[in-house]
Amino acid sequence: MAAETKKGLTPRAQDHSQWYLDVIARADLADYAPVKGCMIIKPYGFAIWEMIRDALDRMIKDTGHSNAYFPLFIPVSFLAKEAQHVEGFAMECAVVTHSGLQKAAGDGPARLVPKGELEEALVVRPTSETIIWHAVRGWISSWRDLPLLLNQWANIVRWEMRTRLFLRTLEFLWQEGHTAHATEEEAREEVARMLEVYRTLAEDWLAMAVVPGKKSESEKFAGAVDTYAIEALMQDNKALQAGTSHFLGQNFARAFDVAFQDKDGQRKLVQTTSWGVSTRLVGGLIMSHGDDRGLVLPPRIAPIQVVVVPIFKNDAEGAKVKPVVERIAAALEERGIRVRVDDRDNLSPGAKYYEWEGKGVPLRVEVGPKDVDKGTVVVARRDAGDKQFLAPDAFLDGAPALLERIQREMLERSRARTKERTFDRGDYAGLREVVDGDRGMARSPWCGAAACEAKVKEETKATIRVIPLGDEGTAGGAERCVVCGAEAKWRPLFAKAY
Amino acid sequence: MAAETKKGLTPRAQDHSQWYLDVIARADLADYAPVKGCMIIKPYGFAIWEMIRDALDRMIKDTGHSNAYFPLFIPVSFLAKEAQHVEGFAMECAVVTHSGLQKAAGDGPARLVPKGELEEALVVRPTSETIIWHAVRGWISSWRDLPLLLNQWANIVRWEMRTRLFLRTLEFLWQEGHTAHATEEEAREEVARMLEVYRTLAEDWLAMAVVPGKKSESEKFAGAVDTYAIEALMQDNKALQAGTSHFLGQNFARAFDVAFQDKDGQRKLVQTTSWGVSTRLVGGLIMSHGDDRGLVLPPRIAPIQVVVVPIFKNDAEGAKVKPVVERIAAALEERGIRVRVDDRDNLSPGAKYYEWEGKGVPLRVEVGPKDVDKGTVVVARRDAGDKQFLAPDAFLDGAPALLERIQREMLERSRARTKERTFDRGDYAGLREVVDGDRGMARSPWCGAAACEAKVKEETKATIRVIPLGDEGTAGGAERCVVCGAEAKWRPLFAKAY
Repeated sequence: MAAETKKGLTPRAQDHSQWYLDVIARADLADYAPVKGCMIIKPYGFAIWEMIRDALDRMIKDTGHSNAYFPLFIPVSFLAKEAQHVEGFAMECAVVTHSGLQKAAGDGPARLVPKGELEEALVVRPTSETIIWHAVRGWISSWRDLPLLLNQWANIVRWEMRTRLFLRTLEFLWQEGHTAHATEEEAREEVARMLEVYRTLAEDWLAMAVVPGKKSESEKFAGAVDTYAIEALMQDNKALQAGTSHFLGQNFARAFDVAFQDKDGQRKLVQTTSWGVSTRLVGGLIMSHGDDRGLVLPPRIAPIQVVVVPIFKNDAEGAKVKPVVERIAAALEERGIRVRVDDRDNLSPGAKYYEWEGKGVPLRVEVGPKDVDKGTVVVARRDAGDKQFLAPDAFLDGAPALLERIQREMLERSRARTKERTFDRGDYAGLREVVDGDRGMARSPWCGAAACEAKVKEETKATIRVIPLGDEGTAGGAERCVVCGAEAKWRPLFAKAY
Repeated sequence: MAAETKKGLTPRAQDHSQWYLDVIARADLADYAPVKGCMIIKPYGFAIWEMIRDALDRMIKDTGHSNAYFPLFIPVSFLAKEAQHVEGFAMECAVVTHSGLQKAAGDGPARLVPKGELEEALVVRPTSETIIWHAVRGWISSWRDLPLLLNQWANIVRWEMRTRLFLRTLEFLWQEGHTAHATEEEAREEVARMLEVYRTLAEDWLAMAVVPGKKSESEKFAGAVDTYAIEALMQDNKALQAGTSHFLGQNFARAFDVAFQDKDGQRKLVQTTSWGVSTRLVGGLIMSHGDDRGLVLPPRIAPIQVVVVPIFKNDAEGAKVKPVVERIAAALEERGIRVRVDDRDNLSPGAKYYEWEGKGVPLRVEVGPKDVDKGTVVVARRDAGDKQFLAPDAFLDGAPALLERIQREMLERSRARTKERTFDRGDYAGLREVVDGDRGMARSPWCGAAACEAKVKEETKATIRVIPLGDEGTAGGAERCVVCGAEAKWRPLFAKAY
C-alpha cells in the first residue's frame, strides 16, 4: 500500500489526534460552530451520515419499529423521577429558563437580555426516556398494545467540556429506540436483537469490526439494569463505543407508572428497552479506515462510489474523451452505482485525484486520449492504492463485484487488525503492558468486583469496554482476577477509549 | 358522497376546530406534549410526514441542493445583527441561560435548579439564517464557489402562545433551504424555482390546490426583501400559508460580511435566499381533504395505500379466504403499492373499516367466503365512498391506475373548490361580504398602500394572503383600490387565515 503523504495531512504515526482533524478538514466533513463544542456537519459529511441513517432506518423498520417524534424540551421535574438517571443526565445539560428576549434598558448599543422567566425550567433532551414514558403511558392499556416499538431520529444536547468533532460534541444527531414489552424475556430479546442490528450496521455497512458485549456496572447507562454495546478498536489502539442497547427493566415504567392489563387480568408494569447510535459513527469510520492520504470509505456507505475524471488538453482530445466518460457514467448509473463525473475546467487532473482521495471515494476512473486510443481506462482503488488498466466494458461488468470486494476486504482488514490487537493477558503486569503501551485491548480475567475495575482505571486509564458475549467473555474455573487474584467470573476487554 | 357520521367525530359543519382535533385523534396522528404547545407526532402521523419529507427531499436534491446540519443554538448577539430579523424572531423564543442543574439547598424533597450561568445566552433556533451565514462566510471566496445551495431538515422553536397541532406548535419540524448567489437575478431565479418545487409538492403529492404569489410588505419574512408563498384554501374557507420562499437580497450578507471575488476581480456581497415548509403541511392535508368520517389521504403520500381485510367466521372460511388475501397482497407489493393486511383476530370487520376509514387509507379491499365463491372482491374507495365488486385480477391490473386516478381527482376537487371559493370583488362592501361571511378569498384591487391593507385587517381580520403571480395579480388601468379608491396596482387575495 503506497501511502504517500501530501501537504497538509499530519501522518497518523506522528500525531493521531491532529491526523483525525486533518482528515475531516481535507474531506470537508465538518467544522466547529460559533457555540463552543457544537458542530456544523458540512454537505459531504452529512451525505455520509444520510447513507448510514438510511441503512439503519431500513433495518429498524424491518424489525417492526415505527418512527415517531417527541419534544425537544423536558420539564426538569421529569428528569428527577428516576434516581440513577438524574445523576447521569441532569447535571450537565442545556437549561431553558426564559421564553423570549427584550432590549436591555440604558443608552448603550442595543443589547438583548432574557425575558419571561418560565415557572419550571426546561432541559434540552440529553436522551428521551423520561419524556417518552411519560407521554406513552396513555397509549398502553392491555397486553394487546404490546410490544410497543418506537424509534426517533433527533438532535441531543449534553454539555460536554472536552469535545471532538463527531466523537463528542455538545449537540449531536442520533436515533433512539424505545420499546415496551409484557415480559422481561421479550425485552431482553429486543435488547439482543438491536445489538445485532448495530453489529450488522457496523460490520456489513461501515466495514468496522466490532465486539458485541455487556458493560460492567460502572459503565452502564444511568437508569439501565444492563447495558450492552458494540465496541470497535481504532487504528491508534483506543476503543470506541459505537452503539448501545439497554435493558431498563421496570425502572422507567415504575417512575412513570406505565402499566398494562395482562392476559391473566393482572395489572403489571411494562419492561422497557432503549438503544442508540449517533453521528459518532462517522468518527469511527474515519479512525477505522482512514490513512495518511485521508478518508477511506467503504463502498456501501460512500455517497460517491466511483469518480470519473476526464483528461484532455484541447478540444480534439475532449471530443475523443468525453463520449467514453459519458458512456461509463451512464452505464455505472444503470448498474445502480453512485457515480460522479468531475469535469471541472479549473482544476488539473492531479488536483482532482488529490481531492477525491481525501474524500475517500472507493474507485477513481481516469480517461485520457491515450487510454481511448488503447481501448482502456485506468481504474484506481482508494483502499488498496493499486491501479489497473481495463477495457471499459470489462470494468463496467466487474464494477459491482469490485465494489463488493472492496467492502469485504475492508471488513476483513478491520477484523484482522482487531484480532491482532486483542491480547490475552492473565496477569496484571501483562494487562498493563498492553494498555500502558497503547498496544490495543487486553482480554483479562476479572472477579466482577467494582474495586478491581476501579483500580485498573485509576492506574492505567483503561476501562472495561465490554464483557464479550458467550464463552469468550466467561472465565474458566481456574482463572484468577488479574487485580485481586480471586476466582474470575468474566474475561472482559480492557482498553483506553474515546 | 355518503358522509355518514359515526360516533366521536364532530361534523365539520358544526365545529370545524373540534372536527380538526377529532380527525387527528381518530387517525392517531399526534398529541400535545407535557410542555405546553409542544407536540408529539405519533407513528402514523410521522409516517405521513416521512412520505412528504422524502418526496420533497428528492426534489431538493434534484435541483442541485445538498443537505447539511447547523447547530440548534444561536448566540443572542447573532440575532441582533439584522435589524428587521431581530424584531421578527428574537422576541419570542426559547432562551438557554445555564449549562446544568444542581440539587437545591435545604431539607425539602430533592429539587433541581439551574447552575452554570452562560456568559452569553443562547437562543434555540427560530430559523437559521444568522448561524448559517456566520458559519458559511468562510466557505466562499470566489465566484467559483457560487451558487452555494444548502438545505437542512431540523427542529425549530418559536414561543407561540396560541398553538394548534401541526398548524402552529412551539416546536415543529421543517426543512430550511439557504442559498447564496453571485447576482440578484440568479437569486431571484432560485426563489422562483423553489416556490415552484413547493407548488409541485402541494399539488402533485398532497393534491392540495395552491395559489403561488408574493406577500405584501407587512406579511413578509423579517429580513427579506421579498417573500413569496403558496397559499391554500381550507374547507372552512380560511387560507393556509403552506410554504414560503424568500429573496433576502444582501441583508444577511451585509450583516455577516459574506463576500466573494467576482470574475471582474471586485469584492461583492452575495445575494441570498431562504425557503421552508414544515409539519404544518400535515395540517393542510387534513383540512384540504378530510371529511366527517376522518382523514382522507392522497395515494402518493399515504403510508398505506391499500388495506386488505379478510372476513371469515371459522377455519373453513379462513382456509378459503386467506390464500386469496395473501395473493392480492403479494401482487400489490409486486406492483410497488404499499399494502397492509389487517388480520387482527380481536376486531370485527366493521371495526377495522372504521379504523382505516379514520386513517384515510385510499383503498380498502374486503375478501369474504362469498366473495371467493363468486370470484370477486369488494373494493371501497375512501375519497369517493363508492364500492365496486371486481374480479381479483381485474382489480390488481387496474390498481396502479386507480390510485393515480384518485390522486388526480382529489387535486381536481381541491382546485374546483378553490376556484369556486375565490370571488372577484371590486368594492369594499363586496370584499367584506366574502371575508366577513367566511365565504372564501376575495380577489380585490389594491393601491399598494400599507394603510389600506391595515384597514382591511383591522375591520375584517382578513389579510392579503398573496398577490398572485402574473396577470392574475396585476390590476388593470381602470381598477380602483377597494379601500381608498386610488388607482390600483395589484389584485391580491384577501382572506382570513390560519
